[in-house]
Amino acid sequence: MTTKAIADDVVAMSKAGNIEGIGPKYWADDIVSIEAMDGPMGRIEGRAGVDAKGEWWSGAHEIHGAETHGPWVNGDQFSVRWVMDVTQKDSGTRLTIDEIALYTVRDGKIVEEKFFY
Amino acid sequence: MTTKAIADDVVAMSKAGNIEGIGPKYWADDIVSIEAMDGPMGRIEGRAGVDAKGEWWSGAHEIHGAETHGPWVNGDQFSVRWVMDVTQKDSGTRLTIDEIALYTVRDGKIVEEKFFY
Repeated sequence: MTTKAIADDVVAMSKAGNIEGIGPKYWADDIVSIEAMDGPMGRIEGRAGVDAKGEWWSGAHEIHGAETHGPWVNGDQFSVRWVMDVTQKDSGTRLTIDEIALYTVRDGKIVEEKFFY
Repeated sequence: MTTKAIADDVVAMSKAGNIEGIGPKYWADDIVSIEAMDGPMGRIEGRAGVDAKGEWWSGAHEIHGAETHGPWVNGDQFSVRWVMDVTQKDSGTRLTIDEIALYTVRDGKIVEEKFFY
């Protein structure tokens, strides 16, 4: 698959409410996930760790609504903009998350995801 | 300056209509500009070439309106979303350009700009 085809499918899956299906379908075994923070959550390497992070995030947040914008593509990379209305379950704080995800593709799999806030 | 401070200033300059001031203020001498295309315009290295590209672009398009969204920051990189209503002067075609620009910062200067469509 081309980067453009993967990008379109990721956005379509997200809009269809199937965000959880993206990882099993597209993450490479050696995927690296990079957040805009220091500490152990700032950079996670490998499917097991990234899966665990996703499970933690889903458990820690209630999602009231989400918009997916994009994708925007250049070469082996594409960007998606997510705008999510969520409540952090621990604190009860409701907030809007507006972020850009930058994905890097190799051999039809996502090898890096990097989040910008 | 931090990446965040540069990102905020780039967005503020753009919203104030001073896009042309960004290059002189922030581009490194060895800046690389990467478009989502093959050919000589796909990758331009150095201030002189990037300046010439900017002059060509400004001359070839009439801008009717522009929105600037962001910035989104992670480490030494930040993203901006531009939505522009333009007419290509040669063809007379009016179109909306919706793109993500990914900037990489080193020593307070932008060393790479990469555009996603």
